[in-house]
Amino acid sequence: MSWVDGKPAPGLSVHDRGLAYGDGLFETIRVRSARPQLFERHLQRLQDGCQRLGLACDLPALSAEILAFSAALGDGVAKLVITRGEGERGYAIPRASAPRRVLLGSPAPAYPIENAEQGVHLFACATRLAEQPRLAGLKHLNRLEQVLARAEWQDPAFAEGLMRDMSGRVVEGVFSNIFLVRDGRLSTPALHRCGVAGVMRAEIIEQARQLQLAVQVQDIAFEQLLCADEVFLCNSLFGIWPVRGLMEHRWSAGPLTRKLQGRLVELSGNS
Amino acid sequence: MSWVDGKPAPGLSVHDRGLAYGDGLFETIRVRSARPQLFERHLQRLQDGCQRLGLACDLPALSAEILAFSAALGDGVAKLVITRGEGERGYAIPRASAPRRVLLGSPAPAYPIENAEQGVHLFACATRLAEQPRLAGLKHLNRLEQVLARAEWQDPAFAEGLMRDMSGRVVEGVFSNIFLVRDGRLSTPALHRCGVAGVMRAEIIEQARQLQLAVQVQDIAFEQLLCADEVFLCNSLFGIWPVRGLMEHRWSAGPLTRKLQGRLVELSGNS
Repeated sequence: MSWVDGKPAPGLSVHDRGLAYGDGLFETIRVRSARPQLFERHLQRLQDGCQRLGLACDLPALSAEILAFSAALGDGVAKLVITRGEGERGYAIPRASAPRRVLLGSPAPAYPIENAEQGVHLFACATRLAEQPRLAGLKHLNRLEQVLARAEWQDPAFAEGLMRDMSGRVVEGVFSNIFLVRDGRLSTPALHRCGVAGVMRAEIIEQARQLQLAVQVQDIAFEQLLCADEVFLCNSLFGIWPVRGLMEHRWSAGPLTRKLQGRLVELSGNS
Repeated sequence: MSWVDGKPAPGLSVHDRGLAYGDGLFETIRVRSARPQLFERHLQRLQDGCQRLGLACDLPALSAEILAFSAALGDGVAKLVITRGEGERGYAIPRASAPRRVLLGSPAPAYPIENAEQGVHLFACATRLAEQPRLAGLKHLNRLEQVLARAEWQDPAFAEGLMRDMSGRVVEGVFSNIFLVRDGRLSTPALHRCGVAGVMRAEIIEQARQLQLAVQVQDIAFEQLLCADEVFLCNSLFGIWPVRGLMEHRWSAGPLTRKLQGRLVELSGNS
């Protein structure tokens, strides 16, 4: 199932700037019972992203389109790609450019239940994230770093890969964000140099605060990760996965990880 | 005029990884009298790029396709986009992925003749290039930095913009490479941290050597640029443009710049 600019279509113009330059953004939205989950957070991030890239986005129209697509999809994943639309050759933004929306439907991912229950092993990716403050935090379409990092391992024993920045700081997973617990305190990497500010990361920060758990958003050295009492990953499709292994280090799923997992299950049941 | 996988087509699949992640490369080739210019250099760069990204590229078939497209185009610009092809959602490279070729024809760019004769003014872009050795030098499809940099100025008095890296080193123009002359010696920035290794840059290095002019490929600080005797830009479409202004600094087109411009004109006449 795919829509382009609100209508079923299998393809888009070869002149689209999304193809030419990765000039656009995307969102990966879990849809349950015909309703997009964490929808307000996805819309908020889209709005922020469009503003930072100078994309003229009609948010109410876009919101209606995603809702209609979700209703048609029923259950699964709705991926929205929003590009700067068509343009002639050259980086200059066309005066008359109109953003293009692409919506792609796919089944809900079939992750093993053990990932959430027992936790996952993280592959330590050699590919580092470049530091680019103007793009940091955005879920933009320039994703070659993630492609290269994901290509570093084939062994299904690793459910995710850890990505660091050029200075070795812990940033995120290839397709998820990361949290640490140390002495009962939650922290997650600051994302002002690189990384994607995930909607589930934002949701977890909010839920932790409601549970009176402060979350420090800060630089995290690799050594701090290795000294953590608990480590977990999150994204909008799988929720929370405890991390049980990274290189020779082992963790068990700890009490804060379980508490937050439970909280998400509750919320998802209520939604 | 546009071809997808060797056949005329106006669009491509919404599932293409070029759109999803910028997972691919491109080349912008000047076509004169039905023949692609600097063709061996373009093919060489494609081959290098495909190897570094792990793209399985059938170079002889691709070469034949570009030649056929150029013959049909006659005169103008052939832009080749090569992507990793279609894939399901997710960064992992599909086992069965087949690279996709997109060829786009456009008229030769109508740059003012004064750019080459009197030289151009450079806009000093605030957008810096992130340092990513794994992608440095490649003409890949992740070009948001160039889009943001090009959007910094609208004034047509600036024909190009200067881009620096995060440490302030001179790297390149938004759509060109840069050379300096100081005390009769040519230099151009090293591109192992960021930047695009242009085919015209490679051609100029080669031509300079044939003229017994050594070219230093090295880190270049902003101050070194400002102290240069001559500065020029190059790319495969416009050849060489002397730089006459950057902020309050002024240069005239010097003897080495003119010599190399003359050499390129000779070669282009002979091709």
